Formats: sequence, structure tokens, C-alpha cells
Amino acid sequence: MRAAIFRNGEIVADTLPEPVPGAGQVLVKTLACGICGSDLHARKHAHRMAEMTRHLNGARKPMDPARDVVFGHEFCCEVLDYGPSTQKRFKTGTRVCSVPALISAEGPKGIGYSNDNVGAYAERMLLSEALLLEVPNGLAAEHAALTEPLAVGIHAVEKANARGDEVPLVIGCGPVGLAVIAGLRLKGLRPIIAADYSPARRALAEKMGADVVIDPAQTLPFKTWAEQAAMTAEQKAARPPAQMWLPALKPALIFECVGVPGVIQQIFEGAPRDARIVVVGVCMETDRSEPMLGIMKELSVQYVLGYTPTEFASSLQLLADGKVDAASLITGKVGIDGVAQAFADLGNPEKHTKILVEPWR
Amino acid sequence: MRAAIFRNGEIVADTLPEPVPGAGQVLVKTLACGICGSDLHARKHAHRMAEMTRHLNGARKPMDPARDVVFGHEFCCEVLDYGPSTQKRFKTGTRVCSVPALISAEGPKGIGYSNDNVGAYAERMLLSEALLLEVPNGLAAEHAALTEPLAVGIHAVEKANARGDEVPLVIGCGPVGLAVIAGLRLKGLRPIIAADYSPARRALAEKMGADVVIDPAQTLPFKTWAEQAAMTAEQKAARPPAQMWLPALKPALIFECVGVPGVIQQIFEGAPRDARIVVVGVCMETDRSEPMLGIMKELSVQYVLGYTPTEFASSLQLLADGKVDAASLITGKVGIDGVAQAFADLGNPEKHTKILVEPWR
Repeated sequence: MRAAIFRNGEIVADTLPEPVPGAGQVLVKTLACGICGSDLHARKHAHRMAEMTRHLNGARKPMDPARDVVFGHEFCCEVLDYGPSTQKRFKTGTRVCSVPALISAEGPKGIGYSNDNVGAYAERMLLSEALLLEVPNGLAAEHAALTEPLAVGIHAVEKANARGDEVPLVIGCGPVGLAVIAGLRLKGLRPIIAADYSPARRALAEKMGADVVIDPAQTLPFKTWAEQAAMTAEQKAARPPAQMWLPALKPALIFECVGVPGVIQQIFEGAPRDARIVVVGVCMETDRSEPMLGIMKELSVQYVLGYTPTEFASSLQLLADGKVDAASLITGKVGIDGVAQAFADLGNPEKHTKILVEPWR
Repeated sequence: MRAAIFRNGEIVADTLPEPVPGAGQVLVKTLACGICGSDLHARKHAHRMAEMTRHLNGARKPMDPARDVVFGHEFCCEVLDYGPSTQKRFKTGTRVCSVPALISAEGPKGIGYSNDNVGAYAERMLLSEALLLEVPNGLAAEHAALTEPLAVGIHAVEKANARGDEVPLVIGCGPVGLAVIAGLRLKGLRPIIAADYSPARRALAEKMGADVVIDPAQTLPFKTWAEQAAMTAEQKAARPPAQMWLPALKPALIFECVGVPGVIQQIFEGAPRDARIVVVGVCMETDRSEPMLGIMKELSVQYVLGYTPTEFASSLQLLADGKVDAASLITGKVGIDGVAQAFADLGNPEKHTKILVEPWR
């Protein structure tokens, strides 16, 4: 079968052996798979990613960048065939989604950054029957493929543990920031303030539900945030005496959705006292910050990754119910031969947000 | 009056004008004041501390290291005289504690790192009548002076927002780590694991209530932690299916009580998945860390500073009720002329933990 392969630091189109489903596994045809920012990061920082994974003490097997890897973990597929020890729960041709994991005797193994399991930038791949979710309501495969990135946003908002009185600020409106905005909107946490340098991304942020969008080149995000977060006269009066001299602001919930060095420090500098910061952007380089600022403001930082199986399933349902405007996020589609160029094109935020790989093209 | 003054980067004994109490203020005699690690930091990194304070957007006035400062914010005093507009709530001679703040028309101003308000390394100082707490139960002044550092530990444990099933690990057993251990013990969160390179500090950690103490030169703290945090067979069986393949460990609550660059990164490397880290040690230098590790493990970091007035008051009461073994922490006493040498002596953890300044000596 054909696949777009990460090989020697580049993405190349080539053929690979047909995958053969093992016990409990299903052979599927890849209908659509989103290119994730983490794939771009992984291409650039593969060795570093492997090194970091080693710190997880065996919870995950690090990929070996010297050997072939097929990326692709945001997929919608079609059931083709079953391996042994399966219940054949879905008819051939059924469209399914799954968390990007393959169950083995030693526990789940990742799909998408693995030398052993092919990801979805390939014509066919293997999934675990136990993890399959049928795509409901006739949702299109290209929209069902957005389940995974949406789940990232839903999870980040869940991990933020909001009490309901916070005013959120989303820094960066790439696919991760946009998913966070969708998650915040579903949670009813408003007004949502969002910042991005790109006009196209700001327009998308509004489409996904941001109430106020800012160009950081024109306006300081924390200034706009403070205007939006001003307490009502009633809230001001209800504060305990010891807090009367503090700025009368609602609590801040800041989502870092950029993932490059220096952004966390910028947030440390701009954030108000007691702000809670959720780091969703995946920064693969060493970062520097001033712990002293965190201390003096009593900031808290919650790093997040991925989602729970429940969040993944509810993300698929939300898309099927039309609760999230998925179509707006898709800005391009490529076949296997187009993946390398798509990686380059995604560098331009004006042109692209989410490019889907459709390996059957 | 005489005072130990921070002047041109050094601590010098000199005389200063007598303080005169303003509206709502009280003139007090300083009975005892602990030398805090932050005072040592401030002497070394005064410019940096001032720079960081500037990021607080006016919430605190930065000290000017080019002008005289009298440190000292862990004090017990005796009421001498009242200024205008006071209620004279306490008789002359009453022993009192106070949060290190002086109320002014513009809000509270700090005591201890201020060019305007003299700290407690002086014979006399000013306090706000409204903030005074009478020392109860005939508690000795030298023990009442430990209210402030104990409150730091109580506050850190409060901010950790423990659910009760966590196993705490305290990294560093200086005065801050010891106060955290006391706070954890009062909260009933056990077993408490504590790590420090110094045998003297480890002995104190045990006295304050640590259940297991480790020398990091001999044993990996996170290895001992994992042994202590192993789930019971019952807890193991009760986990949801998706977690069955994860290590069967109770949640980790890690207190960073060292405050030098690199420690947070070490914790990021050693911490188990989902660990919550409370940063109590005040690191005044730029620090480097790998956000990627935080992300892959979904760590959370809560930076903390100080305490609430309520925590301060309950800390004084706990000392007065004999709930904390305060006496063990005091390893030396000096007069004003001895402060400079005490700053040097505190560099040796084998010899000293808390040195009290008694300006009347």
C-alpha cells in the first residue's frame, strides 16, 4: 500500500507492506486524516521528542527517528476486515473513529508516532476493535476526522477546572486555540477573548465563538482582557476586606495555544495575580521563565495533553450534532503525494488551518 | 535607634531616626525577628527583586536597593505607644504579632523590603493597630516570631488543594520545607516523604513530622516516593479500565522548597504522571525547563507566596497551642551587631536553620 512516510527527517511517498490485523484488531481504510501541528513539530524535533518520551519511564515507547514512521492520528476510517479474536461489531464499510492507540498485551501503544504501528497517512492501517466508535448521524468522514483535535480543546477546558466565574483568554488561534474556543463556548464560559497575529485566524476564532478577538500587534491582550474582566459594582462590594485594595477583576483563565519558547514567560509577565494558565501548545524546545513572577503573582500552570476516551467520544457526538462548525476549519485536502507540500504550506496561517490527507485520492 | 541596615549590598549596624507613629499606627519594640531565606536572597539579588516587583503593575512598590532598607518581616513585638486615630486596643507592654504590612490610604504597604517602612532588624518599628494580634497563652516572643514562616507552610499546603488521597513529597528541608512538613502533618496528609542533603535538616524534618526522610545523594526521592505511594490491592482493582495499564500509584503532591534554578526541571524529570507541584522555594534567577515534559505528564504547577491574614492568625494560635515544635527550629540568636555574621552563618545547613535577631540584646 502507499503511504507518506517520515524518513531521514523528510516526508516521502513510498509503498509499505499491507498491514495484517492481529488478535482483537481491525483492518481499516483511511478516509481522512488531519495534519496536526504536532506532526510538524515531530518532523523538526523528532530526536528531542524521542528523548522526552524516554523520561516517561516506559509509559510510552519512544519512536526511533532513524527508522520509518507514518504519522497521522486525527483520522476517520472505514472497516475493511477483522483479525482473529474479534466480535465483528461493525459491518464492513462502517465509518469509524478511534483514539490513536492500539491495544496490546502490554497495554495501549500509540498510533502516529510509532515505528511499529502505521498512522493514517497511509491507505490502510490497523485499529483495535474495542476502541472503535461508529460515526453517528451520517457525519462526513472529513468532519469526523476533526474529532481528535476538538477533543484536545474539550480536554484542555475540562482540565482548567473552571468554577464558572472566570474570564478566559486564548493566546494563539491555530487548530488548538480554535478547539479551545469551541470547548469554552460549549462550556458557556464567556466572554471569550482570543488573540492571534493572523487576520484569517482571528476571523476563524470569531466563527468558533470568540466574543472579542485581538491582534497583539495592535492591542495588548491583557489590557483587553482586563476591560472584559472588570467586576460588576455588586461583585466589587462583595469582596472580603483584605482584597478591597486589589484590582477588581474576575479570575483569569489563560490558554497558551502557541507552543513556542518565550510565550509562557510573556504570559507570566502580563497575567494578573492568581491567574490560572493552561498550557495546550506543545513546545518541544527548552524554555526559560522567571519563577519569581509566578511566585509573586501566585500563578498556576496546568500542562495538558490529549483527552480521555470519554472526551473523545463526546467530541465525535458534538460534531455529529452540528454543535461545532467543523467545516470552517478545513482549508485544504491532499493525497499521499501532497503531504510533504502540505507540511510546508501549513507554515502560512493566512492560507491554512487544517489540511486533510485523503490517502485514496 | 539602632538597626541592621541593608546598604550598598551589605548588612551594616548603624543608627536611624526614631519612627513616629502616624494615624492608625502603633510604635512597638522589636522582641524577636527571624532571618528569612528571602532576606538572604534579597541581599544577593536586590536589583532583580526590584525588577520583578515592577511587573506587578503597582500592586507593590519596588524597593530601591540604592537607598537604605531594614529587612525583617518575621517578628514578635511589644506595644510601646499609639499614634493618632487609634483605639488603643492593647495595653502598653502587650506582646503582639502582625502580618508584615502597614495600612496606608493607598492600601497596605510591605514591611521588610521597603525604603519607607523599617523592618524588624531595628530596635523599634511601626505597625498598624488594625492588623495586630495579641500573642496568646503566654507564648514566648521567640516562638511567636515563628508565626510568619509557619504561615508560609500552612498556606502552601492550603493552596495545594489536597483531596486527601495524595502522598506528599517535600524537596528541601530548610525553614520553608520544615513549615510545609508541619502544615502537612496538621492536615493529616501522610505518609510525608522529605528529602534534603543535610543530616541536620533531615533530623529536623523527622521532628516536624516527616514519616520518611531521604538523602538524595543516597536514594532517588521519586523511587522512595513511589514505594510509599503504591496503591492498595483494593484501590488497584477499583481503577477505571482505561487506567489499568498505568502504574498503580496514589496521586503525587510535590513541594519544591529549595528555590534554586534547575530544581523544577529535576522535579519535571522525576515526577509521575498527573503530579501536582507546589513551588514554595523562592527562586530569584531565570530558570530553564522542558515544557514538553510537563505536557507529556500533564503536570500542574502552583506557585505560592505568603499567606492570608486568616492563615497567619491560625498559625500563631497553633504555636500557642503547642501544636508545632517551634523550639527545634531556632538554632541561634544575635543582636543587631550580629546580623551580618548571621547572614553568612546561615549558609551552613548543618549549623543553622533559623537565627533570631533580638535587637534589644
